[in-house]
Amino acid sequence: MTTALTLEINGDRLNQTITLLAKIGGLPQGGVRRIAYSPEDVLARQLVQDWMVEAGMTIRIDAAGNIIGTYAAEQEEAPALATGSHIDTVPSGGRYDGALGVLAGIEVVRVLSENNHRLVHPLEVIVFTDEDGGMLGSKAMSGTVVNDPERYRSKDGTSIQNCLKRVGGDWEQLATAQRSRSEIAAFVELHVEQGGVLGSLDKEIGVVEGIASHNLYAITITGHANHAGTTPMHLRRDALVTAAQVVLAVQTLAKNTPGEQVATVGAFQVWPNTANVIPGRVELSVDIRDLSQTKVDNLVAQLKQQLEAIATATRTEITITPILNVQPTLAVPQVQNAIAAICEQLGLSYSYLPSRASHDAQEIGRFTDMGMIFVPSAAGISHSEDEYTSPEQCTQGTNVLLHTLLELDKIYPV
Amino acid sequence: MTTALTLEINGDRLNQTITLLAKIGGLPQGGVRRIAYSPEDVLARQLVQDWMVEAGMTIRIDAAGNIIGTYAAEQEEAPALATGSHIDTVPSGGRYDGALGVLAGIEVVRVLSENNHRLVHPLEVIVFTDEDGGMLGSKAMSGTVVNDPERYRSKDGTSIQNCLKRVGGDWEQLATAQRSRSEIAAFVELHVEQGGVLGSLDKEIGVVEGIASHNLYAITITGHANHAGTTPMHLRRDALVTAAQVVLAVQTLAKNTPGEQVATVGAFQVWPNTANVIPGRVELSVDIRDLSQTKVDNLVAQLKQQLEAIATATRTEITITPILNVQPTLAVPQVQNAIAAICEQLGLSYSYLPSRASHDAQEIGRFTDMGMIFVPSAAGISHSEDEYTSPEQCTQGTNVLLHTLLELDKIYPV
Repeated sequence: MTTALTLEINGDRLNQTITLLAKIGGLPQGGVRRIAYSPEDVLARQLVQDWMVEAGMTIRIDAAGNIIGTYAAEQEEAPALATGSHIDTVPSGGRYDGALGVLAGIEVVRVLSENNHRLVHPLEVIVFTDEDGGMLGSKAMSGTVVNDPERYRSKDGTSIQNCLKRVGGDWEQLATAQRSRSEIAAFVELHVEQGGVLGSLDKEIGVVEGIASHNLYAITITGHANHAGTTPMHLRRDALVTAAQVVLAVQTLAKNTPGEQVATVGAFQVWPNTANVIPGRVELSVDIRDLSQTKVDNLVAQLKQQLEAIATATRTEITITPILNVQPTLAVPQVQNAIAAICEQLGLSYSYLPSRASHDAQEIGRFTDMGMIFVPSAAGISHSEDEYTSPEQCTQGTNVLLHTLLELDKIYPV
Repeated sequence: MTTALTLEINGDRLNQTITLLAKIGGLPQGGVRRIAYSPEDVLARQLVQDWMVEAGMTIRIDAAGNIIGTYAAEQEEAPALATGSHIDTVPSGGRYDGALGVLAGIEVVRVLSENNHRLVHPLEVIVFTDEDGGMLGSKAMSGTVVNDPERYRSKDGTSIQNCLKRVGGDWEQLATAQRSRSEIAAFVELHVEQGGVLGSLDKEIGVVEGIASHNLYAITITGHANHAGTTPMHLRRDALVTAAQVVLAVQTLAKNTPGEQVATVGAFQVWPNTANVIPGRVELSVDIRDLSQTKVDNLVAQLKQQLEAIATATRTEITITPILNVQPTLAVPQVQNAIAAICEQLGLSYSYLPSRASHDAQEIGRFTDMGMIFVPSAAGISHSEDEYTSPEQCTQGTNVLLHTLLELDKIYPV
């Protein structure tokens, strides 16, 4: 590999933009509330566009409201390389989740621009619409938006048609936002990890192997509610005792099967939920994620067998219903390899890891080559005002993004 | 044993009074709402007193509002034999829980009276005040009422002083309601089982061995809430996985230890209780009951050891706090033996069993000899409009009560 490492991110400038953007929708404890389509989101989108233009990009907004800034190439006919992320947040979120990937992209262009360095490919920096509310922007780009406006209504009840108008989009023309491999050759997203893997391994950079599938099931257990004093142990059909076995079965399956799958029982409700009554019903959720959908399907098949055995042994009824199935997206090897090679050249420690949270890259990866760069989240915390990635870590990740894009510019044909 | 079995309960008459009393506070589906101190309770108390007088009893009301009907003895100086129960109900209860024991006592006196049969002991039929709201009546008799009127305030907010006035009692004079072994030589209560043991054994009568202690603990488990997608299994401190182990530890301890103890986790709350977040905290209740407090204490000691091991293994924190400890009361052998002997003479199948629900007999047993007779509850259901004991079963139980009292009249010294 021969990438000249002479170009370097201006860390102070990058982190100043992170601090500035966090003021729009800023919360008292340092977090951000910038819900998609809100006045704060609209204002932040304008600020980001101003920065894009100052950095030397041209801008267009597609029908999904995605902001696409383009740093022109040496050869205008080439397919683009792209980076980006989102600037909307959860209702009480942090300042790094999403924003870092957008601001890093802009900083990359600033560095290229001030050094008069053009790539052979056009370089796009994309702000995807409403990542945290359902990824409308990246889904429109991959063509996976369901043609039902009711599904995309905003939380305050505004129709998606009106939401998109606020950000320059147009629901009726949404299909025009779809893109293909011939337009974008490769996409690389920089994002905070939102987990504790890098921290626990003491690594500076994560080379994402892919974005795990997200499978959600609802389990209902029906036993028989009865007096906790007067019902002997052997006459009970205690739904909570059954549910406890289900929780441990889920845990054991995820923990003892080789691999990096995760499974969680997060929602759990007991009826009638009174100290002196044996529980008659429990409803619980099972959330399973892995890079391999085949593996998830296998785990679910095993779980179903175990549920049958548990139901028989406890004389209760167990039903399992699929609620959600988002297919995994793998990062392509050449992007992973480029990121890892750059880390070695920059002297940054790194680890390969799956992303078990959803990202816009997941949708873009459905139609073109995709890779992701992670930087650590302190204590693995995200979707919280306590989310934190240090200025140095933000700078490191952005330097990796810069040089990865430079490397991909060499690898991908024009 | 030489009890003449010539005396016999009038089953039709008994069951007519059960049906009549159930009209006061009667609910559409056949249940009863007759909360202590309510207008319905006051009206029912008046009806029962009328029946007592018609049956040949004299009546007094003590400071706790207990109605004490006395059927005079051959020898007025002898200590009394007593029976009785309560006529108040839970907000949506059945027509047998409590009422059967009172109406059976009155029917016993009717039979004695119409046959001109006097016992050597006075026979008392007692209606205890507010059994279902806290057993104020029987506790006043045993002297265990706490001197804090706030603790006995009624559910609608009326002070206990005013509640007692409505039923002829007097809070200020409550101590005068306390009684002793010299006044009551033995007490026998007929009650529906409120459980499914007799039904499962196909027995007609239950000979109660004692009333189990009632021990309630609150357990809090603290782990660490985190993203269900991004937190690898080995980095989790999942409070629900810990709680599942606690539920099973409680179950296993109660089920695998020889004996008839019961233990229940009935209340169970998870935080934040969302499908995509690893639970950070669980609060749950543990309800343990047995005839032997020593045994309960042993089980709790074992449980605490297991909780420590579970906490260590799961890297979570577990605290256990005692909430309630009601000591057990044993039925005396001579009363149990008398009930069993009568069952044999009457050709009724029977089984010894503990009562794991509370009853007025539990308090009376703190100062004098106590025994209880159970008749089956269909499907073990109670505290419900679906509570049901057949007219034949009510008659059978009342016949056992009649002849048990006749037998005790011979056994107990005058």
